Amino acid sequence: MMNIAVAQSGGPTCAINASLVGVFKESLKEPSIDAIFGSINGIEGIISNHLIDMKSMILTNEDMDLLRQTPSTVLGSCRYKLPDWREDDTVYKQIVSTLKQRQIGAFFYIGGNDSMDTVNKLSEYFAETGIDVKVIGIPKTIDNDLCITDHTPGFGSAAKYVAVTMREITRDSTVYSIPSVTVVEVMGRHAGWLTASSAVLHALGETAPHLIYVPEVKFTIEKFFKDVRREMAKHKAVIVAVSEGVEVPEGVQSGVVDNFGHKYLSGIGKYLEEMIRKEIGCKVRSIELNVMQRCSSHICSRTDIIESENIGAAGVRCALNGDTGKVMVFKRVCEMPYTTVIETADASEIANREKYLPKKFINSTEDNITDAAVSYFMPLIQGEPDLVMELGLPKHFTLQESVLK
Amino acid sequence: MMNIAVAQSGGPTCAINASLVGVFKESLKEPSIDAIFGSINGIEGIISNHLIDMKSMILTNEDMDLLRQTPSTVLGSCRYKLPDWREDDTVYKQIVSTLKQRQIGAFFYIGGNDSMDTVNKLSEYFAETGIDVKVIGIPKTIDNDLCITDHTPGFGSAAKYVAVTMREITRDSTVYSIPSVTVVEVMGRHAGWLTASSAVLHALGETAPHLIYVPEVKFTIEKFFKDVRREMAKHKAVIVAVSEGVEVPEGVQSGVVDNFGHKYLSGIGKYLEEMIRKEIGCKVRSIELNVMQRCSSHICSRTDIIESENIGAAGVRCALNGDTGKVMVFKRVCEMPYTTVIETADASEIANREKYLPKKFINSTEDNITDAAVSYFMPLIQGEPDLVMELGLPKHFTLQESVLK
Repeated sequence: MMNIAVAQSGGPTCAINASLVGVFKESLKEPSIDAIFGSINGIEGIISNHLIDMKSMILTNEDMDLLRQTPSTVLGSCRYKLPDWREDDTVYKQIVSTLKQRQIGAFFYIGGNDSMDTVNKLSEYFAETGIDVKVIGIPKTIDNDLCITDHTPGFGSAAKYVAVTMREITRDSTVYSIPSVTVVEVMGRHAGWLTASSAVLHALGETAPHLIYVPEVKFTIEKFFKDVRREMAKHKAVIVAVSEGVEVPEGVQSGVVDNFGHKYLSGIGKYLEEMIRKEIGCKVRSIELNVMQRCSSHICSRTDIIESENIGAAGVRCALNGDTGKVMVFKRVCEMPYTTVIETADASEIANREKYLPKKFINSTEDNITDAAVSYFMPLIQGEPDLVMELGLPKHFTLQESVLK
Repeated sequence: MMNIAVAQSGGPTCAINASLVGVFKESLKEPSIDAIFGSINGIEGIISNHLIDMKSMILTNEDMDLLRQTPSTVLGSCRYKLPDWREDDTVYKQIVSTLKQRQIGAFFYIGGNDSMDTVNKLSEYFAETGIDVKVIGIPKTIDNDLCITDHTPGFGSAAKYVAVTMREITRDSTVYSIPSVTVVEVMGRHAGWLTASSAVLHALGETAPHLIYVPEVKFTIEKFFKDVRREMAKHKAVIVAVSEGVEVPEGVQSGVVDNFGHKYLSGIGKYLEEMIRKEIGCKVRSIELNVMQRCSSHICSRTDIIESENIGAAGVRCALNGDTGKVMVFKRVCEMPYTTVIETADASEIANREKYLPKKFINSTEDNITDAAVSYFMPLIQGEPDLVMELGLPKHFTLQESVLK
């Protein structure tokens, strides 16, 4: 018999609690697992021995249903990066102390590439110091920028929100008789996956987004103006999707950009709005999808939620098979019908690395996204949640504020 | 036999196409009505004789289902204000020319208080000049600021979006262990109805929003800091809802506000974010719900959509009864169970007027909203749409881009 611990880390998504349900439910089934501990605020909870008994937290099937539809991380999160244990093993000793005291034999870390760094370091340290605790990473990120895996849990729901909202914004933008440009800023600092996913609208007969800019492509304001003018000649209301991480060459950052100073990364939409107003002079507005793209679980992808739960469960089986230092990944074995299998990769191959949009997903004029990309994105956004409602709003599963303190 | 015309005007909402369905469907039932014309871009389509035959536009029940779930105005919109006909009757003569040519006996205008000004002026002009065309206003606005009516079509859906999103943002904001403030900016230039509606979260056991500021209350930055500090002592993650129209006293607008210059009305959230960062120095962010609050029909209120269709249909019966210069209004006859009836008001009583939040809806410390307001808002956000989907997204009903040109 052993106990296990699970924690959530990094930026919130709509699917990270579904992965928690996957770990919890699979562990319940397993006779060799006794207590299931939830670590509060990611690895910080293990370091400070702040754990809760998940069997007394999740009591019913309805609790699990609610958890699946609750965005963000029910156990809290952190941005904690472990130091190199060869240089300073103080926190590692604190971690081992908690794991020993709680008789924890396996630790599951649901997170992005920073969290996979933690999985990698911990498993290395345990191997080196002869501690028999399995460490398994369950991926998540709306950015879809983890290596090896076909896609990441949480991405499908974010992509669905972006596509649904982009379509609604398109309706909103086309009502007046005067020409206009609408710039929609989408999350993605280094990789353009989420912004690119808005191209699924093309498969539904929408001409929008007419222009899509991702960080993988060098951006120049001169080409941007040319692109916008070309699309304005064809469409009354031009819709532009742009990644927050698209970089504007320094030379043109005078004036307008200064107005947004230190918050430039969340300001490319506003910047392009101002530049269009100055240069083209038409009706223009910018819209930042902000945190709604990572927390709008009311319009999550059912495919994403099911897959996220399955990959959590697969992590438990992986640890029980004796593996450690592994991250669970999706492999797409068939596009039509969409079929995936869950495999493992070494955490060292995923930690601290980023995966960018391949060239074949970006069109030749570098201002839109190809049909090949649309075929890749489309299965990930399919299906809607069957929401439990209360008084007109989706019901959430939450811990008492005092537990998270 | 007569023909009728219908047009949509003002800012988009999720329910304005449902009212169009109401007018259309009720007119189909009526043997005395022959052609049903849709005017493109509001009253501009009547002036320029740009009408489409709605019977060849809406062919099936599925078309009506799609229209009900399509945000914005399928016939386009306008911000056109008629001049005083006593001073200049040029456009009035163009309007009469179109109405005569098309043998139109009744005109239905779906819009906000500016559009009700058009209803008022047209009906006065027709009475004065002996033209027998009935003019009926069907209200709509997410702002809920029309006089006489209990609430406006479109408001319930916007309020539901704001509440659902505010709850999800609350989950997103509470994940880290450090204290934070999240400022959510909600639409409403002069009236705080939509911002206030976020208080429905309190009925679901949420402590958020911890602070709610509406334009009806004088705002001072000193009290704001005091309020925020008080809530930070109680909650790790403080959530603030603020109307875009909340005015900051001129004296404190130095520095930060200048950064946002001419776009101040859409910038109060960003302004408060900067002020908190400067004065309190904690983690802080601002979120603008932007046009999503008026076009997110995927999470519209079923109550709102049904009522919006019904009030459109009631408008047709009103015209057939021989009324003109009237606006259809809701009267709430019972709060529990929620029951409304549809009545009429004179357009002159609604045009160009605004209704503000009553005092009893604002708490005594003027930083939150009362339970009386929550009881008023709650029935309006009930029920979800039964969405027709295609490839993972809600399907929309649209006209060809060329028709709207």
